[in-house]
Amino acid sequence: MAEKIITAKEMAKEQRAISVAEFFEKNRHLLGFDNPTKSLLTVVKEAVDNALDACEEANILPEIKVKIKEMEENRYKVMIEDNGPGILREQIPRIFAKLLYGSKFHRLRQSRGQQGIGISASVLYGQLTTGYPAVIYSKPKSKGKTHVFHLKIDTIKNEPEIIKEDIKEDGLEHTGTKITLIIEGKYVQRYHSPDEYMKQTAIVNPWAKLSYKSPDGKKYDFPRVVKKLSRRPKEIKPHPHGVELGILIRMLKNTKSRNISGFLQNEFCRVGSTSAEEICRLAGLSLEDNPKKITHQSQQKLLKAMQRVKLMRPPTNCLSPIGDKILEEGLKKEINSDFISTITREPSVYRGIPFQIEAGIAYGGELKSEENEIKNSNQVKLMRFANKIPLLYEPSGCAITKAVSSIRWRRYGLEQSGKNLPRGPAVIVVHIASAWVPYTSEGKESIANYPEIIKEIKLAVQDCARKMLRHIRKKTKAKRETERLNIFESYIPLIIEGAKELTGEKKKIDPKPIINKVIKKELINYDKERKRNKEEA
Amino acid sequence: MAEKIITAKEMAKEQRAISVAEFFEKNRHLLGFDNPTKSLLTVVKEAVDNALDACEEANILPEIKVKIKEMEENRYKVMIEDNGPGILREQIPRIFAKLLYGSKFHRLRQSRGQQGIGISASVLYGQLTTGYPAVIYSKPKSKGKTHVFHLKIDTIKNEPEIIKEDIKEDGLEHTGTKITLIIEGKYVQRYHSPDEYMKQTAIVNPWAKLSYKSPDGKKYDFPRVVKKLSRRPKEIKPHPHGVELGILIRMLKNTKSRNISGFLQNEFCRVGSTSAEEICRLAGLSLEDNPKKITHQSQQKLLKAMQRVKLMRPPTNCLSPIGDKILEEGLKKEINSDFISTITREPSVYRGIPFQIEAGIAYGGELKSEENEIKNSNQVKLMRFANKIPLLYEPSGCAITKAVSSIRWRRYGLEQSGKNLPRGPAVIVVHIASAWVPYTSEGKESIANYPEIIKEIKLAVQDCARKMLRHIRKKTKAKRETERLNIFESYIPLIIEGAKELTGEKKKIDPKPIINKVIKKELINYDKERKRNKEEA
Repeated sequence: MAEKIITAKEMAKEQRAISVAEFFEKNRHLLGFDNPTKSLLTVVKEAVDNALDACEEANILPEIKVKIKEMEENRYKVMIEDNGPGILREQIPRIFAKLLYGSKFHRLRQSRGQQGIGISASVLYGQLTTGYPAVIYSKPKSKGKTHVFHLKIDTIKNEPEIIKEDIKEDGLEHTGTKITLIIEGKYVQRYHSPDEYMKQTAIVNPWAKLSYKSPDGKKYDFPRVVKKLSRRPKEIKPHPHGVELGILIRMLKNTKSRNISGFLQNEFCRVGSTSAEEICRLAGLSLEDNPKKITHQSQQKLLKAMQRVKLMRPPTNCLSPIGDKILEEGLKKEINSDFISTITREPSVYRGIPFQIEAGIAYGGELKSEENEIKNSNQVKLMRFANKIPLLYEPSGCAITKAVSSIRWRRYGLEQSGKNLPRGPAVIVVHIASAWVPYTSEGKESIANYPEIIKEIKLAVQDCARKMLRHIRKKTKAKRETERLNIFESYIPLIIEGAKELTGEKKKIDPKPIINKVIKKELINYDKERKRNKEEA
Repeated sequence: MAEKIITAKEMAKEQRAISVAEFFEKNRHLLGFDNPTKSLLTVVKEAVDNALDACEEANILPEIKVKIKEMEENRYKVMIEDNGPGILREQIPRIFAKLLYGSKFHRLRQSRGQQGIGISASVLYGQLTTGYPAVIYSKPKSKGKTHVFHLKIDTIKNEPEIIKEDIKEDGLEHTGTKITLIIEGKYVQRYHSPDEYMKQTAIVNPWAKLSYKSPDGKKYDFPRVVKKLSRRPKEIKPHPHGVELGILIRMLKNTKSRNISGFLQNEFCRVGSTSAEEICRLAGLSLEDNPKKITHQSQQKLLKAMQRVKLMRPPTNCLSPIGDKILEEGLKKEINSDFISTITREPSVYRGIPFQIEAGIAYGGELKSEENEIKNSNQVKLMRFANKIPLLYEPSGCAITKAVSSIRWRRYGLEQSGKNLPRGPAVIVVHIASAWVPYTSEGKESIANYPEIIKEIKLAVQDCARKMLRHIRKKTKAKRETERLNIFESYIPLIIEGAKELTGEKKKIDPKPIINKVIKKELINYDKERKRNKEEA
């Protein structure tokens, strides 16, 4: 070979650690910062999601303001303010300027945020594209002062860099947090806009009061229509059926329990003394064995036993669904339709993690327009939500789209070609609530295709679809009936005239009583026919 | 509200840092560990990619052994051994048991690995699913000893945990590295198998000698057909047209250059003293300004000037394409077809980063089977490669699939319905080589849709398709000609008999000379017709 062989020693010089901030700076498309349009939406989304989470965790009815202002071409100032509990001074820099820092990753409980990445990623994106620091206002005590931070991320270390710190007497009015970012972006008014995101957020969070000022100066107010927060989710322990060996080994190593029986009952949900005994018996372990000292082989047997034993499903109070009534309220508020049906399914489980599906269908009304035939033959609008967040990107790979497309919609009165979304004047809404939503990317844009999840979505949507079908049939029937009766009304006078001519009858005959008689008879026949049809079906 | 309001202080208790290992442990689907089938492939792929990279960086012709053994249901032992340069003892733990550690992230130069995640992620996956540590053998000096490490990852810290360390006199035969992992997996023989991965790897790395023993005990040898490594890529500096403001600010802050002119010439490619002057003039800066001291506004002006100034494209010696001849060799070796055409396009640029497209089409031969009509009307097989790695998952969102489907294939002699892949007895191969491949996920499964990349792929594939069309036409024409001449041969004797009967001629007439005469005439006519057709076209 012409070139000389290079040794391990020479190659070693280039090896070094990569900070997670550098990693995501270079791979920002993984976090939803692919292009300027999506980036503007992502920034709004991450900040609003955090604001809603903070308010709800603190039991405060959310009141959130969003303002976007165009500063120059492709450059926007984005401001999001909430009335949440605020953040302690010493926590502010890390929460906003360190990736992988947060309170939600290590617990099993429904929340919008999961990873401790989103808001810091937005700060990172701002500094990368415009060089400006994020400005944070936070007031943790209602009669206290407001802390002000100008923050950047030191990407090489993934640590906050405090550009400026200040305390203001006259900062925020009430407790809460305000963030201002200057970013590169692009504002469009179509589906992928902050406008649509705010509208959909209002639908699934009707207890929140939202106000939004768009870059073109329009002001939108989404009033609060429900006066109460939905159920506050509780943190749960992992379920034995969902644990993996590596995690179990770590738990065994770090537990404070002195024996296996205690370990199983303290660290997992749904394990009492009887199940603990059963698990130990199946695994060939003694209840008194020290969890830190069992062999690797016993660890493996323990896992198998834990997965085999019959247990109650995990508790579902870690979930906080919207509720079918409230989802209906939300839909009514934003969509003017003839018909709405919503459902909240019972919770279910994937990989030991509880989740719950809610769905809704709105049909007709403004969605149907007689002037606009194209609209009626368009695909329905599918709105996807996960833990009360609208998902606006990447519909095609998402479990929700797959599940909805796999339904045979002709049975439910909508047109459909192949395995695509149905066509017709309808909006379909699907919400998955889970203690851990299996997103397909860090950008939280679509749901992984777990069969358990797809099945539940189908059942929920089919339930609404059946009710929609009854509505469509009733409407068609009513229309057909009216048409039939109209025929009698217009022809009976002619028949009377004809009969008069034939019989030579001269006196005036009022057609009204005859018409009524015929219609009455007809309605009886019609009912009979309907009954017969029902019996046959 | 019934529940009490929770303060910032109470909420602060739950905040903490998340290690990147914990993050990916919980989100392992982001790294290609979604399900057992894919996970088995991902482990093989990450180890083989690293082995090939190590050999090529060290200028060693690669010789790689892969063995997969089923240990029990859904559990496999995977062994990968290379003849690379080995790894220094002190580097071994971090290279294999720390996520985001490596030599490839911080430089701009083509390699299979990019992030410093893959192999450690495989170790993480093994310990998560089976609890076993990875076993690494490495011999950095040909006459030295072999270092043996049993490694796990301390996921809470993202640091290596050394379970056992050893030195062996009789370890590996030559310099190199061997890794053994015990993982949960599933072996299938269809498209997503390690078998297919090894076969495709052999096609685009014909200078590598690969051997593979599959779980069902079959042994496959992929011999070396090219005796020389492809061009060794060189590291380049970033190009001014591709830099972002946040990165520029960091570079200005950390530079060793004392003035802007030096900064521009030392830290970027394609900037000489004239371009540096031009950039400074456009930005309103002096050549002598201190890069660490210019204002934020000047930083922004500098970026705009850098993007506006005319510069040569980045150097392309950071790329190492396969080469059209070698790609052809590789295809010939693995596919038995009638026709092969390959092309290596000139390098191009997206976002300041050089890339280069290569493509190939194989047609007919064993791909076409007369008994098997279904096979001929099937979609073509599309093989996707990035930096000499086969991409077996997520074809639908990939720039390669999009580009190939967007070609109008009927023009090139293949069937096609809508904007799908064409149908016919063909294999299409596309390779993108780049100093930074824009993957859509950490799992490196598909290429982001940059318009520059899609355009180059289309041009490359269309070039091969044109040649394929000529081949198809030639074959059809030859077939038609033979058929025509056969007609004369069978009818002329009958015509002679008929003529004899009519004229009463009794003597025997030999049809041969007549046949030859007619055929000769016919061929002349045929040639004339062909010429005319050509002229008309």
